[in-house]
Amino acid sequence: MTNKELILTAQCDDRPGLVASISKWIFQRGGNILHLDQHVDSSSNRFFLRIHWSLDNSDENNISLINKNFSQEIGDRLNLEFSLAWKDNIPQMAIFVTKLGHCLWDILSRYESSELQVKIPLIISNHKKYQELADKFEIPYFFIAKNKNNKIEQERKELAILTENKIDFIVLARYMQILSPQFVSHFPNRIINIHHSFLPAFPGAKPYHRAHDRGVKLIGATAHYVTSDLDEGPIIEQDTIRITHRDSVNDLIRNGRDLEKVVLSRAIRLHVNRQVMVHDNRTLVFG
Amino acid sequence: MTNKELILTAQCDDRPGLVASISKWIFQRGGNILHLDQHVDSSSNRFFLRIHWSLDNSDENNISLINKNFSQEIGDRLNLEFSLAWKDNIPQMAIFVTKLGHCLWDILSRYESSELQVKIPLIISNHKKYQELADKFEIPYFFIAKNKNNKIEQERKELAILTENKIDFIVLARYMQILSPQFVSHFPNRIINIHHSFLPAFPGAKPYHRAHDRGVKLIGATAHYVTSDLDEGPIIEQDTIRITHRDSVNDLIRNGRDLEKVVLSRAIRLHVNRQVMVHDNRTLVFG
Amino acid sequence: MTNKELILTAQCDDRPGLVASISKWIFQRGGNILHLDQHVDSSSNRFFLRIHWSLDNSDENNISLINKNFSQEIGDRLNLEFSLAWKDNIPQMAIFVTKLGHCLWDILSRYESSELQVKIPLIISNHKKYQELADKFEIPYFFIAKNKNNKIEQERKELAILTENKIDFIVLARYMQILSPQFVSHFPNRIINIHHSFLPAFPGAKPYHRAHDRGVKLIGATAHYVTSDLDEGPIIEQDTIRITHRDSVNDLIRNGRDLEKVVLSRAIRLHVNRQVMVHDNRTLVFG
Amino acid sequence: MTNKELILTAQCDDRPGLVASISKWIFQRGGNILHLDQHVDSSSNRFFLRIHWSLDNSDENNISLINKNFSQEIGDRLNLEFSLAWKDNIPQMAIFVTKLGHCLWDILSRYESSELQVKIPLIISNHKKYQELADKFEIPYFFIAKNKNNKIEQERKELAILTENKIDFIVLARYMQILSPQFVSHFPNRIINIHHSFLPAFPGAKPYHRAHDRGVKLIGATAHYVTSDLDEGPIIEQDTIRITHRDSVNDLIRNGRDLEKVVLSRAIRLHVNRQVMVHDNRTLVFG
Repeated sequence: MTNKELILTAQCDDRPGLVASISKWIFQRGGNILHLDQHVDSSSNRFFLRIHWSLDNSDENNISLINKNFSQEIGDRLNLEFSLAWKDNIPQMAIFVTKLGHCLWDILSRYESSELQVKIPLIISNHKKYQELADKFEIPYFFIAKNKNNKIEQERKELAILTENKIDFIVLARYMQILSPQFVSHFPNRIINIHHSFLPAFPGAKPYHRAHDRGVKLIGATAHYVTSDLDEGPIIEQDTIRITHRDSVNDLIRNGRDLEKVVLSRAIRLHVNRQVMVHDNRTLVFG
Repeated sequence: MTNKELILTAQCDDRPGLVASISKWIFQRGGNILHLDQHVDSSSNRFFLRIHWSLDNSDENNISLINKNFSQEIGDRLNLEFSLAWKDNIPQMAIFVTKLGHCLWDILSRYESSELQVKIPLIISNHKKYQELADKFEIPYFFIAKNKNNKIEQERKELAILTENKIDFIVLARYMQILSPQFVSHFPNRIINIHHSFLPAFPGAKPYHRAHDRGVKLIGATAHYVTSDLDEGPIIEQDTIRITHRDSVNDLIRNGRDLEKVVLSRAIRLHVNRQVMVHDNRTLVFG
Repeated sequence: MTNKELILTAQCDDRPGLVASISKWIFQRGGNILHLDQHVDSSSNRFFLRIHWSLDNSDENNISLINKNFSQEIGDRLNLEFSLAWKDNIPQMAIFVTKLGHCLWDILSRYESSELQVKIPLIISNHKKYQELADKFEIPYFFIAKNKNNKIEQERKELAILTENKIDFIVLARYMQILSPQFVSHFPNRIINIHHSFLPAFPGAKPYHRAHDRGVKLIGATAHYVTSDLDEGPIIEQDTIRITHRDSVNDLIRNGRDLEKVVLSRAIRLHVNRQVMVHDNRTLVFG
Repeated sequence: MTNKELILTAQCDDRPGLVASISKWIFQRGGNILHLDQHVDSSSNRFFLRIHWSLDNSDENNISLINKNFSQEIGDRLNLEFSLAWKDNIPQMAIFVTKLGHCLWDILSRYESSELQVKIPLIISNHKKYQELADKFEIPYFFIAKNKNNKIEQERKELAILTENKIDFIVLARYMQILSPQFVSHFPNRIINIHHSFLPAFPGAKPYHRAHDRGVKLIGATAHYVTSDLDEGPIIEQDTIRITHRDSVNDLIRNGRDLEKVVLSRAIRLHVNRQVMVHDNRTLVFG
């Protein structure tokens, strides 16, 4: 991977000639397509495209200019919603956490071992519990307590911190506070939550307790983009594991942790790699 | 496996000495324990036991007498709910089917290849569609049409047929009729249904359509005992498979078929092997 | 799906402009791309493409002519290895079977329920065992016994039958004979075998026995194209299931059957849908 | 869980009356069985037992004395190989690591969050790389370099450190050195290794490269006890995940990490909970 590889994602209403137009543009700019995924959703007649391409012999290195050119020369004409970025772009990711730390631990250990292609400028929490852990990793930790009376005010502080640090997207690593619609509206499809059930089963509180009561044979975890509807946002990734009658609620909680960590980290990677597109509250996840 | 192996399943309120008493009784009757599974549910303080044992050197071959002796000598005293049967006992299984035949096909092909340790004396359907298939396998096929006005009357006919054929348990192989509570009460924990979702997600009608609309990343199937609450009975077995945004509703339906077949046949085998115990609307499934 | 949808698969050495050229050709012929998958294998610098497209408003209905035009106008120039066919083309599939019938049963039940988009003109076996089953489904059954002395001669008979029936591809549904390299050379990447292990673990005979002896915690099944190297051909599909110390060899065999059936039928579907491409003894399986 | 719960594991040649004798002994000592698992391996006629029991109303709190009594009163007579310990016993676990740190990170984050019921008195490595990480967690780190000339001598140092710290078992968290048979003989079935393939596929070096070359559709990881035969010891746990033709070797390595971490931590938990028994190079893993 060099600085000269790009990822284009685009969507628009479908009609003949879209791939031909876009691939021709890339070819004429000196690009070579390394990997292309295209899908037409037949029910909505919507066209989706992700192209990973290289600009091997080009002097072009200004991504704003490439975007501007693409927009003027093809995007506007085709009425594309698109995003075009260097493949090795490193987004700024904020973590929100409350009192359960396994997802935070997992993210930080992947971060330290350079597995995640992100920069983590800060952690925000409504508890002081992980101050010491953040110190250990030398990541600024903002303790912002919330109650039902001060939520909007505290969210304003959070937004200021996020803006100042040029945060691209937020990961809720078992953050036990519901974000207001106003807050969410600042990060559309850019807040990733991990819910500890196989949604739409067991939305809301205490899913492991309810899974145990119902006697299910598998438990699950779901990573999704946050919308103003609780646990109803577009699903990015899910997985399940087998349990038995011998597993108590505490066993479910413990086994579920591994699932939550893996599902959340997969969702982060898919988001960072620009493999996720959203339309009509559903995701397309390209391979 | 010889005629001389038995399966005991038992449950009662827990207290010290239960395993000691029961295993002593088996030892004194000349039995050898081949496989024992015991579990105490700590929340309900309930004791569950399954023992697979052999009577190698015994002349005993009257299962009614063994049951009577067990009951008098130990079961009554310990206040056990128990079941004791030869391991190679062949139960009588009835199949109910409507218009989707993949589960029926799967069961019949397993039946023909001697994979299922059951006898299938009859198929009941509210459609004529699988008459020919039943003929091919030389299994009597009863066409019993139902509508909202004649359900109870038709169920009476069904019950008469089931009784006459000494049916032990019923498999609903995608049977698209809701059975009345009266009917169900004749076969407590002896009617197995396959539902085409990962319950409790998507109970009721058209689960694949709703899974597609919600944008889930996995679809599931659930085999459960039928109770008077629709899709709420004790779950015997579940599984899930991965899908993508490329899968249309028809793809989900097609992929789901494989899951339904496998999950249902596993549930049938677990039931036949007496590996399933029920308490408080949940199952214990012994290995 | 109408008669007017096509599947193109193509591969060649990679260079810039391939997608642009091919998608332009489709556009100019009045086609609309519904689904495009493209991949460049970076180690071999090989380009792979699968396009599902529609010809909605065209009078074109001669697939030979479309092929000829594609070849002359673009395929030859780009030096493409390609295949271009109607999406609803129904290939002719032959089944080879020996004495284990679960895969045969599974294929036939899917066939009867119109799940498989194939025509099955014949079954070939080195045993008489499934003559009756074939009769039940009204499929001609050829009993061709083999021993080490007559293999080449018998394979000649088989080839004559296959040719006469215009067989496109062969499924070895647990066929317990090794085909000669000469025979295989008539059906390159068109003979699908199911092996009852997770290859490359346990190639050859008695994999379940060896899995049991080794004490593995999962067993697998592998569908692959047959080459002249036993169990070494390109893998199309694999899957695994969990087992425990309680499972005897017979339990592995029984549980493995479900896996073999599902893995083989997935491979058949992938092959029929032209989702599989082969290069350098490996497959690319498009979604 | 209180101090008064015990785990008994035992094995011997099978004969009638074993469960009756042992459960009677427990009952007479004032114990109550909470969970019992028993299995007879029919091929070797070997009896295996694991009992989780409580001593609620007893004054007994000397585990050595309980062991002595069990041995004298029943173990010797039945010729049992057994182990009897408090359920909340905390074993001393050493970690060996080389240059790949994801398993180390994962274990330490589980350790810090009190998920693992162990004490980790030390880390041993043939590289200096994780000194700083060990410092962060305040765990002593012993750098013991090895080459082909000094292996036995260095292992002697390691053994001295392990003995001095009363280490109960060792986890090889991607330790890239082969231990000598002499070293291994000090920790029979008490060294857990994680191998980055689905054994017996791809034993030895570079399994992900070989998996990629072979074109498998799933990759795996295997946790096993170390014996003097490389990658041939008793398997404790395995799992697999799906890959595609799009995954490069580096993708396999990255995806494999998650699998290695989860499989290794499951194996550690099973070992610590005394759920694993070994016989004839195979494990029994009780639920």
